[in-house]
Amino acid sequence: MPAIEEVIARIGPLDEGALALAREREAALTKPAGSLGRLEELAIQLAGILGTERPRLARKAIVIMAADHGVTAEGISAYPAEVTPQMVANFLTGGAAINALAGGAGARVTIVDLGVRGAIPEVSGGADGPMLLRHPLGPGTANAAHGPAMTRETARQAIAFGIAVAEAEGGRGLDLLGVGEMGIGNTTAASAIVAALTGLPPERTTGHGTGVIGAAYDRKIAIVRQMLVTNRPDPADPLDVLAKVGGFEIAGLVGLLLGAAAARVPIVLDGFITGAAALVAVRLCPAVQPYLIAAHRSAEPGHAVVLDALGLTPLLDLGLRLGEGSGAALAFGLVDGAARHLAEMATFAEARVSEEA
Amino acid sequence: MPAIEEVIARIGPLDEGALALAREREAALTKPAGSLGRLEELAIQLAGILGTERPRLARKAIVIMAADHGVTAEGISAYPAEVTPQMVANFLTGGAAINALAGGAGARVTIVDLGVRGAIPEVSGGADGPMLLRHPLGPGTANAAHGPAMTRETARQAIAFGIAVAEAEGGRGLDLLGVGEMGIGNTTAASAIVAALTGLPPERTTGHGTGVIGAAYDRKIAIVRQMLVTNRPDPADPLDVLAKVGGFEIAGLVGLLLGAAAARVPIVLDGFITGAAALVAVRLCPAVQPYLIAAHRSAEPGHAVVLDALGLTPLLDLGLRLGEGSGAALAFGLVDGAARHLAEMATFAEARVSEEA
Repeated sequence: MPAIEEVIARIGPLDEGALALAREREAALTKPAGSLGRLEELAIQLAGILGTERPRLARKAIVIMAADHGVTAEGISAYPAEVTPQMVANFLTGGAAINALAGGAGARVTIVDLGVRGAIPEVSGGADGPMLLRHPLGPGTANAAHGPAMTRETARQAIAFGIAVAEAEGGRGLDLLGVGEMGIGNTTAASAIVAALTGLPPERTTGHGTGVIGAAYDRKIAIVRQMLVTNRPDPADPLDVLAKVGGFEIAGLVGLLLGAAAARVPIVLDGFITGAAALVAVRLCPAVQPYLIAAHRSAEPGHAVVLDALGLTPLLDLGLRLGEGSGAALAFGLVDGAARHLAEMATFAEARVSEEA
Repeated sequence: MPAIEEVIARIGPLDEGALALAREREAALTKPAGSLGRLEELAIQLAGILGTERPRLARKAIVIMAADHGVTAEGISAYPAEVTPQMVANFLTGGAAINALAGGAGARVTIVDLGVRGAIPEVSGGADGPMLLRHPLGPGTANAAHGPAMTRETARQAIAFGIAVAEAEGGRGLDLLGVGEMGIGNTTAASAIVAALTGLPPERTTGHGTGVIGAAYDRKIAIVRQMLVTNRPDPADPLDVLAKVGGFEIAGLVGLLLGAAAARVPIVLDGFITGAAALVAVRLCPAVQPYLIAAHRSAEPGHAVVLDALGLTPLLDLGLRLGEGSGAALAFGLVDGAARHLAEMATFAEARVSEEA
């Protein structure tokens, strides 16, 4: 297992030389200055991450971290916990939304089991289907309404495995990473993490998840509050917050983000849960922030809080609230377009096009 | 040339049976109801257009209509008119933004010259590069600040050629059409069209185009007003508006939209100018509207007016203002994702995933 502190120490700033060359090249391309809007700043960010003014994103992956949550015993989800392993099987056979969307984006899919409760149904996904990596840390976390979700040591193990996944994906070739998650109950964990790290009340960070409304929604807010009161996570210690009210898959995502940033891979976040993981990662290591791209603004109200805390403006606002990396996969086309225009377009001089009068 | 009225008569409503089957299938897919937000309604629209609850968008094209505008003599553009043929050459050699973005979206590109002024530089784009179709109606339109941009008969010819282009593209195989344009001066023409058709003052429909600011911007607004005062286009007669203050490429786009709707092809609009063409098309034939998808909200202020008049909500809001079909190409990934999720995902029953409790 890689040492977390060693990986954090490797995360450097964006490449200033590539950023300068990219800005120069952007200004010389055959289009009015600024006419591609947000795509232009995104292209320059990609150049700074990848260290070239001609960024190319040939090899793309979506990595989905999955695990279960003991807090589901409190009845905070619209779906039973058995859906987590069922959906992992659905990912593996290619029947989920992320399979369709990643297929469209030309991205491979990797599923990571960090502690799914119960057996994942036996399925065969075919030789070129998604890969499953397993490092279960238990049959889901403990019920964080009554005590810590996991020990600090287990949180470190999950982060270390996330780093190892980043290294394994890097070994397969990786120019763009999208991150996703699956875990019934994990919007509750994310709400508690974000409330703890931002100091906002649970009402501001808790949403309807997969469909929790009415009295059940009030109960969900009360459980998030109970998780915080019971565990008293230290907002100045992100690892403490992660261990006490987080989840195995969220901790795995933290490691994945650290590992990808250390390897200088651009990272496309999905929605609320991956955003909560990013907030933990950035609190552990602020240098991660410039490697992050926010795919979309989720329908979960806590996501706006997360984006604000991360200083990220999302590319899409389509009312998505699925998770699985679905929003990240949808944004891949935009990120790819940003890279392609900077890498491939002709300059005014090359194309012999007259410049502005 | 196809008769315009005959094509309009062929444009029918969306397929009610396919819409019903698509809604039923959407509700049965392995995800919480509504969790893919805007993508779900888009998928159902595609099903209704294509007549199947499993819409597939294998063959995609961007068609760019190009022409010049006599009104550029009034100094309303930041770029000289010679840029139009230069950029057509740039499209053909693959150096423009649309080439990079269409490449990323897996879409072919077709350029249509409806009246570019001056010779298009001789270039070779390679066997699988963009196709150029030519039907020049003159060396650009007449200066609409002093009289009609073209005769009513010429506008009909441009529309008829646009319909022929739709038929030709359909013959090559077409599941998704994105439309774009190139023509120095054409935001001025579009501003006049939109002001005439909506009754709004030129201040509301006129923007900075490719970079017209300060006193030049005030002059642009004054010229749009002069175009309207001089020509008195009849807002109840869209063909009159199009002929008097429009452009060859805008008229060609009107025909392209009519032809694509008649062939039941989903149409992705780009920005302000293609939106102005769509407004003319919908005024000629309201049945075109359900075939339209708005790619993005342009930085041009008149575009919000157009989207409102068309009753369309854009997918993207990235501050784009390039044209060429660039926004349409960027949205192709989202439209493709919408189709794929509906066509490819497993249902709860197929995947043996438990439904909501």
